Amino acid sequence: MGGSAAIDLKKRGFADKIIGVDNNRLHAETALHIGVVDEIASMEEAIANCDLVVVAVPVDSAVKLIPKILDQVNGQAITDMCSTKEMICQLVKYHPKRKNYVAAHPMAGTEFSGPWAAKSGLFDGKAVMFCDAEESDIRALAVIRRMFEALNMRVTFMDASSHDRHAAFVSHISHISSFALALTVLDQERNEKHIFDMASGGFDSTVRLAKSSAEMWSPIFEQNAENVVVVLNTYIQKLSDFKEAIEDGDRDKIDGLIKKSNQIKKILK
Amino acid sequence: MGGSAAIDLKKRGFADKIIGVDNNRLHAETALHIGVVDEIASMEEAIANCDLVVVAVPVDSAVKLIPKILDQVNGQAITDMCSTKEMICQLVKYHPKRKNYVAAHPMAGTEFSGPWAAKSGLFDGKAVMFCDAEESDIRALAVIRRMFEALNMRVTFMDASSHDRHAAFVSHISHISSFALALTVLDQERNEKHIFDMASGGFDSTVRLAKSSAEMWSPIFEQNAENVVVVLNTYIQKLSDFKEAIEDGDRDKIDGLIKKSNQIKKILK
Repeated sequence: MGGSAAIDLKKRGFADKIIGVDNNRLHAETALHIGVVDEIASMEEAIANCDLVVVAVPVDSAVKLIPKILDQVNGQAITDMCSTKEMICQLVKYHPKRKNYVAAHPMAGTEFSGPWAAKSGLFDGKAVMFCDAEESDIRALAVIRRMFEALNMRVTFMDASSHDRHAAFVSHISHISSFALALTVLDQERNEKHIFDMASGGFDSTVRLAKSSAEMWSPIFEQNAENVVVVLNTYIQKLSDFKEAIEDGDRDKIDGLIKKSNQIKKILK
Repeated sequence: MGGSAAIDLKKRGFADKIIGVDNNRLHAETALHIGVVDEIASMEEAIANCDLVVVAVPVDSAVKLIPKILDQVNGQAITDMCSTKEMICQLVKYHPKRKNYVAAHPMAGTEFSGPWAAKSGLFDGKAVMFCDAEESDIRALAVIRRMFEALNMRVTFMDASSHDRHAAFVSHISHISSFALALTVLDQERNEKHIFDMASGGFDSTVRLAKSSAEMWSPIFEQNAENVVVVLNTYIQKLSDFKEAIEDGDRDKIDGLIKKSNQIKKILK
């Protein structure tokens, strides 16, 4: 996500120079080599020489990094792209430079990671959630808002706790649903050719997210455990409803469940 | 699926004329109006005037229609596009014209239905399963094979019973997973704007299949109940494994589940 943002922020004239910081040397060198960033630097150098900081790392690293970066910034705004917000917001709540931080969650991404996954247009037309925005300085908020608008994102506002609850329902459960689907098929289907041949019957799109990394997603499930478990309980209940209806050969009940689920069409065209 | 096949079979020179039969008058007239078919006719007229018959209807209609069409054909080959094969194959097993029927399942489709959903290229590069092919006449098999090859499909062979078991694992479960996901979110998320805003965080791709119709899918789950229930049990177990790992805050176990599910990458690029 950091790479995709870098490409469009440069291309669209929001940024003059992108300084990349990555503790993985291969990622850093690749990002420089393929032109996603203009230079690579240590975190200290980068912070000393930048106008704003975007943290694009897994949430378990973000909770360690963001307070440290806040220690070092000298007036610059700092934002992130993490999928959970409550823990980060709590950790920096009493930081003397809390106002420099704008907690953000751009609702975009792919199942791939690293600089080679960076692509232009990733954020276009999607929403970014600003969380607990009243805790941020009005100037920090304005510059981060301009940045996300340069990425063609719609800005919405939410408190961090509600954000995490909604994210569990609408985003995090989709990933668990997909991981579990991959596990089910891998467990029971010994013949890889059959999987490959039959995947175009719907499996390919529902299982796409199962290619997502543990590095990114385990910390999300950990930080959002309470909400995610609530959603999982509901999800397992809905699957059990289907199972019961199918076992009973209850056509009306199966029809009813499918027709109710079809209502998602009204919301997502 | 019937409409998508019609477009490409005509465009690619396999068919000179497409005669459409549909008991829904609006569908039939639309198919004619937008050029998916060249004419519309009653089933009797169509069978009397065609070189081969493609049945593209939900599986509960197919089990009624296919024996009737077999009664009427005069040497022509007949095939279908249904997602379950065992019940149909059993129903026609002792039909005097069994050899005219080639049981086929092209692994393609979208969540949409009706003539307005027809599109060129739908089948390109995908697999079609021929089931119990030894029960079909060699000439019927040859013409149906040429037809699916004109749609750029790879032909594979399987017995009907294995087909249904594999389809439950690789295709049917994906739809239930998606329907249940839609139900979960619709149940718990009262704010439609949040669903819309956050859908790009993965929900949109996993829930796409939940737009599929009950008319098409309820009969599939009914006919393939035994296999589908086995898969649902495994799927619910995998979700429970995730839930337990998240409840316990067991990072190693969460990592392990995700990394195992990532192996799907080896099969699906």
